[in-house]
Amino acid sequence: MRHLLNPLDFSVEETDALIKLAMNIADNPQKYSKCCVNKKLAVLFYEPSTRTRLSFETAMLNLGGSVIGFSSADSSSASKGESVADTIRVVSCYADIAAMRHPKEGAPLVASRFSSIPVINAGDGGHQHPTQTLTDLLTINTLKGRLSNMTVGICGDLKFGRTVHSLINALSRYTNIKFILISPPELKIPDYIRDGVLKARNIEFIESTNLDSVISKLDILYMTRVQRERFFNEEDYIRLKDTYILDSSKMKLAGDDMYILHPLPRVNEISIEIDTDHRAAYFKQVKLGMYIRMALIMTLLEVKIDD
Amino acid sequence: MRHLLNPLDFSVEETDALIKLAMNIADNPQKYSKCCVNKKLAVLFYEPSTRTRLSFETAMLNLGGSVIGFSSADSSSASKGESVADTIRVVSCYADIAAMRHPKEGAPLVASRFSSIPVINAGDGGHQHPTQTLTDLLTINTLKGRLSNMTVGICGDLKFGRTVHSLINALSRYTNIKFILISPPELKIPDYIRDGVLKARNIEFIESTNLDSVISKLDILYMTRVQRERFFNEEDYIRLKDTYILDSSKMKLAGDDMYILHPLPRVNEISIEIDTDHRAAYFKQVKLGMYIRMALIMTLLEVKIDD
Amino acid sequence: MRHLLNPLDFSVEETDALIKLAMNIADNPQKYSKCCVNKKLAVLFYEPSTRTRLSFETAMLNLGGSVIGFSSADSSSASKGESVADTIRVVSCYADIAAMRHPKEGAPLVASRFSSIPVINAGDGGHQHPTQTLTDLLTINTLKGRLSNMTVGICGDLKFGRTVHSLINALSRYTNIKFILISPPELKIPDYIRDGVLKARNIEFIESTNLDSVISKLDILYMTRVQRERFFNEEDYIRLKDTYILDSSKMKLAGDDMYILHPLPRVNEISIEIDTDHRAAYFKQVKLGMYIRMALIMTLLEVKIDD
Repeated sequence: MRHLLNPLDFSVEETDALIKLAMNIADNPQKYSKCCVNKKLAVLFYEPSTRTRLSFETAMLNLGGSVIGFSSADSSSASKGESVADTIRVVSCYADIAAMRHPKEGAPLVASRFSSIPVINAGDGGHQHPTQTLTDLLTINTLKGRLSNMTVGICGDLKFGRTVHSLINALSRYTNIKFILISPPELKIPDYIRDGVLKARNIEFIESTNLDSVISKLDILYMTRVQRERFFNEEDYIRLKDTYILDSSKMKLAGDDMYILHPLPRVNEISIEIDTDHRAAYFKQVKLGMYIRMALIMTLLEVKIDD
Repeated sequence: MRHLLNPLDFSVEETDALIKLAMNIADNPQKYSKCCVNKKLAVLFYEPSTRTRLSFETAMLNLGGSVIGFSSADSSSASKGESVADTIRVVSCYADIAAMRHPKEGAPLVASRFSSIPVINAGDGGHQHPTQTLTDLLTINTLKGRLSNMTVGICGDLKFGRTVHSLINALSRYTNIKFILISPPELKIPDYIRDGVLKARNIEFIESTNLDSVISKLDILYMTRVQRERFFNEEDYIRLKDTYILDSSKMKLAGDDMYILHPLPRVNEISIEIDTDHRAAYFKQVKLGMYIRMALIMTLLEVKIDD
Repeated sequence: MRHLLNPLDFSVEETDALIKLAMNIADNPQKYSKCCVNKKLAVLFYEPSTRTRLSFETAMLNLGGSVIGFSSADSSSASKGESVADTIRVVSCYADIAAMRHPKEGAPLVASRFSSIPVINAGDGGHQHPTQTLTDLLTINTLKGRLSNMTVGICGDLKFGRTVHSLINALSRYTNIKFILISPPELKIPDYIRDGVLKARNIEFIESTNLDSVISKLDILYMTRVQRERFFNEEDYIRLKDTYILDSSKMKLAGDDMYILHPLPRVNEISIEIDTDHRAAYFKQVKLGMYIRMALIMTLLEVKIDD
């Protein structure tokens, strides 16, 4: 039995197979609409996340299965002191597969050890969010037709953003990827990624504090939230926000096939004026996230259909 | 693509078609049980409302579809600062139609502008609640066989009750409707309804403070809640409550075919002693509300079945 | 129309029929997967209980039906002052059967009086939790092949544990059951059970404060939580906890076919080191709880299938 706890749990070959399956599903969703009849997904969300939870639920419904679970810790047995280990053992009696979101790092790992059904980590604190990374890979592959030979810009909070670290890790396994890492100095990529991943694997990368000066070189721009309250005094924030808010004037400097991704929710780091730009791919990304989850559920449940 | 944001968004002809469809569904629900297979309704309830939410969910399930969503803002992405516009764009990737309840007036309108799926206003603050109005029309038509040529009494809080204003507006489009508006002086119908609708359209109406004196003239009595804490000192409340609480002694003054409607929940304005009176139609109204929502979902999704 | 409000609402014959049906379902769940197509279960949970709620939901989904409802009072109409009587009348318009969990004793009874659909008490305060008792009976019968001629140990909080009182009541209807009741003096079985049930029916029982000294005599050991904060000063707790925490050293004293049940959630009264012991039946009990709820839903809805 397989689980998905970390973005790198799947090999490159397995990831590529998953992406291929997701693209097949996207092309012909109807064909897959009975794959998981009589199967049940448990969504165990110890903290709220509408988008991720609804993505999983929709994925299972689109496969013909059904959904049980909870959307916050308040309405769970956690409030009675039940351990994650016992909860997953109970849920294993009800469901065929589980997606767990938990504020504590490692909770899905603990769950997987006591589970008799596949466990998907749907986000554990600041740690991992592997289905977001798979979504990002699928989106890039769908937009560009490849996952190699390109320059990927990542902009915003590179220090704390878990999706950023996972994406760098995942893309580093493909050939000839260059990164341009754009952030204020206070939010630079941490050493364990810079040295431990990029330098260790001889990946080409540039660090920059200025989005305008590098945007023309990018094939993909991955935007993330810079949380005002966290890191800046008000002066710094005002000084920096013009640099990192993506608007139509910045988009004029970018290539016609430079697509913008964002893990969402955005607050104001992407101006809504560019939502209609054909390069704005963040809502397309949402749809693709649902398809990759369909592919993931099928793969972990070992459900196959004839071609 | 159509939305339903206001009770008057549908013309009289469209409303009549909807009512006709709902009555067909009520007569033969089994015939419609596969209409929306593989379709998904998103219930986006930023404030709790069990009855309305369950009515929508039941409606979609009865059509063979399925449901995703949230039942309070706590368990939504709103708590992370996501805008209604972004939420509906995300939900448009998952569902085929959405029903939104929101404490802020106009939120469903905003959502409809950014949505790629039909949006139903399931209540926005004190503003509109169009599926309640459609329910009221269907109930009157089912009980009376017509929506014209009758005297409709509306009793209780006529000042703030959004369902009252919508119902007056909607019924005013039919011929020969007379209104008897029964309330304490403090809770009289506001000018924009009295002058802007009733007088402007030459609709006959009487204002009264006394239910007993007019009840015998009514074909329909629409009761609403008078909230104790809102408008009266204790003395006024005690003085008034006998006048506005419907009980069996008042029902003796009413005609045998004067049906009672109420948008629910009631607190104490209808005595439970008359729940078994054949003229008490407020629970029948609940059932009909589910049928009108089935008809509405089918209509907005442009789903048709052969007769 | 039948409801299930108390564990003794069903006669011994009816209970045995329910257990037989549940065992048939457990043997061949696929055969029952279409029993309740187009039927809807309403889960009306005025306080959270993940395990019980998900058990009911899974049961209905496994029968081919669907589920509506709420998982806490916050997201219900109760916050607007609607009575349980009115809520069940509304829900009767939507669903075919309801399962109600409520913090107030008697709420499901009130609901049943106003309901036009079967109501299952899914726990009302410290009062009754009949589907837990049915689960316990099914588990014992599955493990032992019988519900008579055995010695049943019940350990922990015998004073306040509602499941304990119900289980004693239910088992007392079978022949030749002996009880060994193990608890600290402060948490002994109350008089209305000791005198009103056990003595009144001439049931053999022993009261003990020491688990070690009696465990070898048991066919079944039913463990319950002893809540630290409730009854002991810290000294008493430390003194007592060794006596009542079941671990592998105690299990060495027990027979090879002495199975352990627990209504869950456990906190620390069963050491996790014995979870892999073949006699640890509390997670099997969870699965069986889902099967007995399938049998119960079928029975109350009068759904039958050909053998």
